Amino acid sequence: MKADEIRRKEDILPPEGRLGVLIPGLAGAVSTTFIAGVEAVRRKMALPIGSLTQMGTIRLGKRTENRVPKIKEFVPLANLESLVFGGWDIFEDNLYDACLKAKVLRKDLVEGLKDFLCEIKPYPGVFRQDFVHNLEGQYIKKEKDYLGLIEALKADIEDFKRRHNLNRCVMIWCGSTEAYLSLKDVHKSLDAFEEGLKKNDPAIAPSMLYAYAAITSGVPFVNGAPNLTVDIPALIELAEKNKVPIAGKDFKTGQTLLKTIIAPGIKARMLGLKGWFSTNILGNRDGLVLDDAASFKTKEISKKSVLDYILQPDVYPELYKDVYHKVRINYYPPRGDNKEAWDNIDIFGWLGYEMQIKINFLCRDSILAAPVVLDLALFIDFARRAGLYGIQEWLSFYFKSPMVGKELYPEHDLFIQLMKLKNTLRVLMEETEITHTGLDYYIEE
Amino acid sequence: MKADEIRRKEDILPPEGRLGVLIPGLAGAVSTTFIAGVEAVRRKMALPIGSLTQMGTIRLGKRTENRVPKIKEFVPLANLESLVFGGWDIFEDNLYDACLKAKVLRKDLVEGLKDFLCEIKPYPGVFRQDFVHNLEGQYIKKEKDYLGLIEALKADIEDFKRRHNLNRCVMIWCGSTEAYLSLKDVHKSLDAFEEGLKKNDPAIAPSMLYAYAAITSGVPFVNGAPNLTVDIPALIELAEKNKVPIAGKDFKTGQTLLKTIIAPGIKARMLGLKGWFSTNILGNRDGLVLDDAASFKTKEISKKSVLDYILQPDVYPELYKDVYHKVRINYYPPRGDNKEAWDNIDIFGWLGYEMQIKINFLCRDSILAAPVVLDLALFIDFARRAGLYGIQEWLSFYFKSPMVGKELYPEHDLFIQLMKLKNTLRVLMEETEITHTGLDYYIEE
Amino acid sequence: MKADEIRRKEDILPPEGRLGVLIPGLAGAVSTTFIAGVEAVRRKMALPIGSLTQMGTIRLGKRTENRVPKIKEFVPLANLESLVFGGWDIFEDNLYDACLKAKVLRKDLVEGLKDFLCEIKPYPGVFRQDFVHNLEGQYIKKEKDYLGLIEALKADIEDFKRRHNLNRCVMIWCGSTEAYLSLKDVHKSLDAFEEGLKKNDPAIAPSMLYAYAAITSGVPFVNGAPNLTVDIPALIELAEKNKVPIAGKDFKTGQTLLKTIIAPGIKARMLGLKGWFSTNILGNRDGLVLDDAASFKTKEISKKSVLDYILQPDVYPELYKDVYHKVRINYYPPRGDNKEAWDNIDIFGWLGYEMQIKINFLCRDSILAAPVVLDLALFIDFARRAGLYGIQEWLSFYFKSPMVGKELYPEHDLFIQLMKLKNTLRVLMEETEITHTGLDYYIEE
Amino acid sequence: MKADEIRRKEDILPPEGRLGVLIPGLAGAVSTTFIAGVEAVRRKMALPIGSLTQMGTIRLGKRTENRVPKIKEFVPLANLESLVFGGWDIFEDNLYDACLKAKVLRKDLVEGLKDFLCEIKPYPGVFRQDFVHNLEGQYIKKEKDYLGLIEALKADIEDFKRRHNLNRCVMIWCGSTEAYLSLKDVHKSLDAFEEGLKKNDPAIAPSMLYAYAAITSGVPFVNGAPNLTVDIPALIELAEKNKVPIAGKDFKTGQTLLKTIIAPGIKARMLGLKGWFSTNILGNRDGLVLDDAASFKTKEISKKSVLDYILQPDVYPELYKDVYHKVRINYYPPRGDNKEAWDNIDIFGWLGYEMQIKINFLCRDSILAAPVVLDLALFIDFARRAGLYGIQEWLSFYFKSPMVGKELYPEHDLFIQLMKLKNTLRVLMEETEITHTGLDYYIEE
Repeated sequence: MKADEIRRKEDILPPEGRLGVLIPGLAGAVSTTFIAGVEAVRRKMALPIGSLTQMGTIRLGKRTENRVPKIKEFVPLANLESLVFGGWDIFEDNLYDACLKAKVLRKDLVEGLKDFLCEIKPYPGVFRQDFVHNLEGQYIKKEKDYLGLIEALKADIEDFKRRHNLNRCVMIWCGSTEAYLSLKDVHKSLDAFEEGLKKNDPAIAPSMLYAYAAITSGVPFVNGAPNLTVDIPALIELAEKNKVPIAGKDFKTGQTLLKTIIAPGIKARMLGLKGWFSTNILGNRDGLVLDDAASFKTKEISKKSVLDYILQPDVYPELYKDVYHKVRINYYPPRGDNKEAWDNIDIFGWLGYEMQIKINFLCRDSILAAPVVLDLALFIDFARRAGLYGIQEWLSFYFKSPMVGKELYPEHDLFIQLMKLKNTLRVLMEETEITHTGLDYYIEE
Repeated sequence: MKADEIRRKEDILPPEGRLGVLIPGLAGAVSTTFIAGVEAVRRKMALPIGSLTQMGTIRLGKRTENRVPKIKEFVPLANLESLVFGGWDIFEDNLYDACLKAKVLRKDLVEGLKDFLCEIKPYPGVFRQDFVHNLEGQYIKKEKDYLGLIEALKADIEDFKRRHNLNRCVMIWCGSTEAYLSLKDVHKSLDAFEEGLKKNDPAIAPSMLYAYAAITSGVPFVNGAPNLTVDIPALIELAEKNKVPIAGKDFKTGQTLLKTIIAPGIKARMLGLKGWFSTNILGNRDGLVLDDAASFKTKEISKKSVLDYILQPDVYPELYKDVYHKVRINYYPPRGDNKEAWDNIDIFGWLGYEMQIKINFLCRDSILAAPVVLDLALFIDFARRAGLYGIQEWLSFYFKSPMVGKELYPEHDLFIQLMKLKNTLRVLMEETEITHTGLDYYIEE
Repeated sequence: MKADEIRRKEDILPPEGRLGVLIPGLAGAVSTTFIAGVEAVRRKMALPIGSLTQMGTIRLGKRTENRVPKIKEFVPLANLESLVFGGWDIFEDNLYDACLKAKVLRKDLVEGLKDFLCEIKPYPGVFRQDFVHNLEGQYIKKEKDYLGLIEALKADIEDFKRRHNLNRCVMIWCGSTEAYLSLKDVHKSLDAFEEGLKKNDPAIAPSMLYAYAAITSGVPFVNGAPNLTVDIPALIELAEKNKVPIAGKDFKTGQTLLKTIIAPGIKARMLGLKGWFSTNILGNRDGLVLDDAASFKTKEISKKSVLDYILQPDVYPELYKDVYHKVRINYYPPRGDNKEAWDNIDIFGWLGYEMQIKINFLCRDSILAAPVVLDLALFIDFARRAGLYGIQEWLSFYFKSPMVGKELYPEHDLFIQLMKLKNTLRVLMEETEITHTGLDYYIEE
Repeated sequence: MKADEIRRKEDILPPEGRLGVLIPGLAGAVSTTFIAGVEAVRRKMALPIGSLTQMGTIRLGKRTENRVPKIKEFVPLANLESLVFGGWDIFEDNLYDACLKAKVLRKDLVEGLKDFLCEIKPYPGVFRQDFVHNLEGQYIKKEKDYLGLIEALKADIEDFKRRHNLNRCVMIWCGSTEAYLSLKDVHKSLDAFEEGLKKNDPAIAPSMLYAYAAITSGVPFVNGAPNLTVDIPALIELAEKNKVPIAGKDFKTGQTLLKTIIAPGIKARMLGLKGWFSTNILGNRDGLVLDDAASFKTKEISKKSVLDYILQPDVYPELYKDVYHKVRINYYPPRGDNKEAWDNIDIFGWLGYEMQIKINFLCRDSILAAPVVLDLALFIDFARRAGLYGIQEWLSFYFKSPMVGKELYPEHDLFIQLMKLKNTLRVLMEETEITHTGLDYYIEE
C-alpha cells in the first residue's frame, strides 16, 4: 500500500447498502451456525456472544476519562441487518436441512427460523477427491478445467449480487480442510500460477480457485481453514494488484485458542516448558475429514507452529529449546459437534522444579467459530472501505496461522493480537494508541 | 512525585555496593526457597527460572530491527552477587534447618548449600496471636508497646546494614497471612496512625509496624501477603513523605496466576461467564494458616476481586453481570508444599450455548513465589534509584491485589500488567513504547 | 427372624394387585424424576436405565450352561404397571409443577406426561425448622404433638390405600437431609422412644415419625437420606416386632458410588492410600440444604465412613492407617441438578512410590437416584412377601451407609454388595450360589 | 487335569530350597524394578506394596469369626529369601546399570543395592527385528535356527540351576511387546508347531521359543506381554503333556487396571455406555516400542477386548451394543516411566440422560507391574506344587487378556477375578468358599 491510500476517520467509506457474505462450505456446521445465529440475533431471540464487533468495547484516552464506546459504534461497520448470505457446497441441502444435520443448534431454535433458512441454498461446489479423502462430493460443478470453474464461480458471484441487489461482497472459506500441500513453484508468482491454471496443475487446490475468483471480482477473501489457499505469493500478489484485502488462515477456536492464551502466560512469567501434549475427541464432519492423514497433516502444521512463535526458543533457549509438542486429533462419534480437548503441559520453574497443568475443555466447535466468521466478514469489509489491501495482519487475532508480510514473523500471542487489532482501529480513527504505561497518573503538576 | 524527580537513562543512580534484602517471615518456605535458590544460581548449580529480571528480554524498536536485550542488561539492576539476606521470624531456625523443614527443595541441594544457609539466622519477630490463630510464636520480641517494637525493628535494620556494610536495603513481607482487617479510621491518615501507634491500637497489625520501620528508615517496602499492611492511606502518605517506593499486595502465584491468564483470554474473545469455581488443596504452613476462617477471609477477598476487575461486569453486563465466583482452600497434608488447584469455568458463547473449561494445576507454591521475590527486590531497588516513590503500579504484574492510586482501578490482566511493566522500563530508558500496531510494515515508500 | 419364617421359591407370596409407593419428599427432584420416569417407561417413551430390577440379569449355574434370565423374570417382583404413587411434601406443587421446578427432565418429556403428573399431589408434610435450616416449610401438618402427627400420617396412608384400592404399600424417604443427630437414650429402645413420643422429645426427628407411622401400619420403610431415621435400636425393634422389612441409609449415587467402585479396586491390588480429597459442586435444593453446616455434618459422616470399612485400616495398617480423607460439598447454582464431582486420590505402590488418580464426574444426581428408588420399592416389597423382616442387609448395594445387624460391620464394597444381593436372590429361589471358583472346568472326567 | 492329581492342604508339596525366577527382558524397567525391589524388601528398606501374596489377607469362615490370616501364611508360598534371579536380554547391562537407565527407582536406593545388582547379568537374548521394529538387539544369541536357539535357552536354564543350586524355576516374560501375529495353522497343534520349529517358520515368534524351552524343561511359564506366546493350542497342549502350569497374558496395570475396576461398577448399576476414549502418554522404552504400528496392534487388541467381556453387549444390548471404544498410546519423552493416562467415559442413565466420567491417572508403569511379577512367580510355583497344570485361569486377576479353557469366556471384572483367586485358594486349602450371602446372621436359633 501507499501511505496516502489509507483512509482515516471521516474519509473511510460508509457501509452503504447491503453486504453479501459468500461462503464456500455453506451447508457445513460452522456456516449454518453463523447464518442461523445472525438471523436469531436480528430477531432478538439470542445474543451474538463471542463477537468482538458486536459485544466488544474499546477504551479511548486515559483510564480516568471513562471513554469506552462499543467497537461497532466507534468504527463504521456494516450492521447485522444489512447482511445477505450465500455460497457453495458439495451437498445440496438448504440451510434448514443443513442445520438439522449439523446438530449444533437446538431443534426448537432451528424450527423458529425455518422460513428464513429454507430460502438459502448453495450453488454447486468445486470438488476434487484428492483434496478431501473422507467425503464424497454430491453436488458439484460440471466444468472440467480450472478456467471454466473460475468463470462459473465468478458468474455465481455476479448472479448473487444481482439477485440481492448488493453493493459489496466478502468471501469466507468455511469448507473442509484440504489435504496437505507444500509450497510449489506454481504458487510462487502470479505468472506461474496463471500458467498453472491453464494447465490444470494438480498443485492448485479447489480453495485457490475460489480465492482467485473472489479477488478478480474485487471481493475480499478470508480463509478459515489451514489450507494454503491465499497464503501463497501468487495470490498475495493478485490481491495487491487488485487492491483487495485478504486474511487467514485457520479460525482460532477451541484447543488452539486456549493454547494461545496459556502459552503467553507461561512465557510472561518466564516459566520453562518441557512438553505440551494436546489431544481432542470430536465427532462432527470436521473430525471425519481430519481422521484422514493427509488432511490432518495440514491441520497439524497449522496447530504446531503456534508454540514456536509464541515462545521464541531462539531467544529463550534455556526455557523453550527442547519443548516436546504433540497434537493428536481423534474421531469419536459419541460427541458430535461437542469437541472435547485435553492438554497436558509440563512446565518447570525456579531451579528447574517441575509442575504440570492439565486442561480439559468441553467446547463446541461451531459455536466458537460462528462469531469469528461474523467479525471477519465485518472487519474485512471495513478494511476495504478504509483503503487497506493485501494481507491484513491486524486480523491475526482470529487465526491459528496468521498471514504476515514477507520479512515478518507472525504474532500468535492472543493478547498482542488483540492489542494490535485495537490499536490499529485507534490509529485509523485517529485516537491515541494505548501503551498501558501509567507513570503520569502519579505525577503531580 | 514531581515530573523532574524521575531520573532517566544515564541519570538513574547505578547499583553500587551491596543490596540488603530484609524479609519478615525469613524462615518460611517462600523466603528459604528464594534465598537458597539465589545462592544455588550464584554457584551455577541451577537457573533462576521464572525470574523476569534474570531470564527476560525486552524488544526495542520495530520487529525487523532485532533488538532484544536481556532486561538485566537494559536497565541498571543490582546483580545477584551483590545480594545479602536477612530478616525476622517467629521460629528461631537458621535457614538450613528452615529449608529442611519446608521440604520444598531436594535434600541434596540443601546439603550442598549448608555452610551458606547455616550462617543466616532471623532476628526475633513481632507476633500477635489475634492476627495468626493457627501458629504459635516461639521467638518473639519482648517489647510490649508499638513504639518500642518499631524502635527494635529499626535497630535490627541498622545492625544488619552495619554488620554487612550495606549501601541499600529493601524489605519484602513473606510472613503468614494475617487475620482479616477492614479499613478503620486509624488507617486513614498518617496523623491518626501515629496517634494509634502511641495508643497501641489493636487495628494496627504487626505487618504495619514492619512497614513503618522500613519506610522511616528509607527502606522500600513490598507486601507479598494479602494483609492490608502498606495499602492504607496512612502508610502511602508516609512513603510519599519519605520518598520511598512501596508495592503490593499478595504475590501472584498458582491458581490466581492462571486465573489472570485465562480470564483475559475469555474476555478477549467476548465469551460470557456464568460461574468460576476454584478449589485447591495444600499441606504446607500456608495451608494451615488459611484453614483459619479469619486468615482465609483476607485471602479470599484478595483472590475474588480479580475477576471483577478483569471482566468489567459494568461494561459487559450481558457477559459478566451474574458470574458466580467461589474460591475454596483446603488444608490437605499429604501434599506438603505441592499445592494442587482445580478450577471449573462455566462459559457461554454464540447465542448463549454453554461450554466448560476445567483446569488442574499441580503446582509448587514456593517455587512460583521465589522468583517473584527476587524480581521485586531488584525492581523496587531500581525504582528508588530512578527517583520513583509512593505506589509502584507498574509492578502490578506480580500481585494478586495490585495497589493503585486513589482514582484508579487496578489492572489484573497479566498481559496488560506485563505491557505496563515493559513500557515503563522503555519510558525510563527513553526507548519508544511498543503498541503492536503494524500497518507501517505494509506501506511502501 | 426364625428360619422357618422365610418363604422360598413357589412359597413366596405373588405380587397381586397394585403396590402403593409412598414418598416423603414427593415434590423433590429425586422423586419427581423417579415417578415421571416410571410413567415414561410405561408409555414406552424411554428405558429404565440404571435399574437392576428392570435391566439386570442373573447368571444361574455354570458359565457353560448359559442360563442368564432377567432378574424380574427370576424373582416375583411387582411390575411397573402395578405401581401407584403418593406421598408428602412441604411444598404444595403437584408433580407437573414440581418436575418443571426441578429442571432435571427436559421440558418436552414433562409436557408429554402433564395429564399424569398433574393428578399427583402431596399430602402436607411434617416439618421442623431446627432439622432443615435452609428451607422454609410452606405446606405442613397443623398437629402440634408427635402422637397427633403420627396419627395424621397413618390416616394419610389409609386414605391413600382406600382411594387407590391398594393391596400393599412401601414408604421411601426422599426428603431433605436433616440436621445431624447423635444417638441418644431416647433412640436406644422402643420403650424409651415411645416415652419420648409422648413428651415430644426434640431428639426425635420428623423422619422418625414417618418411619413409626409406616412400620406400625405394616408398611416397609426405606431411608434414602443420611439421617438416622430407622437406623436406631428403637425402630429396628419396632420393625422386628411388626415383622416389617426396613432398609437404609442414604442412596448411593454420584461421588460415593464411584468411591465404592474405586476404593475396592485399589485395595484388591494392595495399593496404599495416603489421601483422598473429594469435592463437588451442585446447584439444586439438595446443595442448598447441605450448604448448612448441621445438615452437611449428617452427610459428611455418611460419606466418610465408606473408606474405613472398605479399606480395613486395622487389617492393613501399612497401607491404610494414615489415610487423610476430606469431603467438601459446595453450593454452586450455575449447574442446577447437574452435580459435578472432583476427586483426587493419592496412592502409593511398590516400595512406597507415589501415584495419583483424579476423577471428574459430570453426573446428574436425580438421574442416578431414580432407578435406585424403583429397585428399592420393588425389592423391599418382595422382601415382605418372602417373609423377611427387620434390617435387609442384602440391599446394602443401594446405600452409602448400609444398615447392618448389631455385631456386624457394613459392607461398602459395591462388588461384594452386588454378590450379596444376587446370591441372596439365588438362595431364596433355591439356586446354587456363585463363588467364581472354576477349577472344575479344567478337570477331565 | 484329573481330579486326583490336585493336591490339597497338607498334601501340597512344601516350597523347599530356593526358587529361580528366570526373566526374558531381564534388563528392562519392569524386571529391574521387581528384582531391586525384592532385594530392598529383603533388606527391610521398603515394603512390597501392591503384592497380594505379601500384603494381602484372606477371610475364612463367617464375618463374626474374625479369622483373617495373611495369604502367605495361609498357603505354602516360597518366601522372598528363597528367590534367585536370572534371565536374558538383548542389552548386555548388568542390573545396576539397567536400573539407572530405567530411571524408575531413585538413585540413592539403587546405589544402596549396587553390590547385589552388579552381580546379576543376563544371558544373551533371542532377537528378531521383524518382531520388534523400534529396538536394535545388541547382545543376542548366535544360533541361526530355532532348534539351536531352543537348545541354547535350555542350556542356559540348566546352567542357571546348577550355578545357584536350585530346586525349582519359573519363567516370566517381561520382554517388549512383539509385532502383531494372528493365529496360524502352525500354532494350532503341537505337531504342526514342532514341524514349524524344524522349518524355522516365520510365524513362530521369539517368545514362543522361550516358552517351548521352559515347558520342556519343566519350568512353569507366565506371559506378561500381549503377544500370543503360550496362548496358542500348540503350547497349551505341550504344557498339559508336560504337566506344567502356564498363565497369561499382558500384565494388568495402569489404564486397563482402572478400566477393569470402573467398567464393572458401571455395569453393576446397569448404567449404559456410549463411548470410552482412552489415551495415554509415556516416555519409556515400552512407549518407544508401542510407537510402532505393528506392536501397537498387539497391544490394542489386548486392551480393547476388555470392555466387551465385562459389559456383555449381547446380554445387555440396550446398554452396551453401540459402545465406541478407542485406545490411543502416545510416545511422549518428557515423562519417562511415569505414564499418564486420560480416560473419557460417556455413560447414560435413567431415561437415557447422559453423564461423563473423566479419569486422569498419573501412574508409574513399572511400579505397578513389579508386584504382579512377584505374585505370579510365587503363585505359579505354588500351582505346580499343588499339582495344577495347563492354563491357570484363577490367575486372571493379573492379566489384561486372561487365558481360559476352550469353551469358556475370560473374566475381566477385577472383582470377580479376585473372588475367583481367593475362593480357589480356599478350595485348595479346604476352607468354605465365601458367597457373601448373609441371611443367616439375622436368623435366631
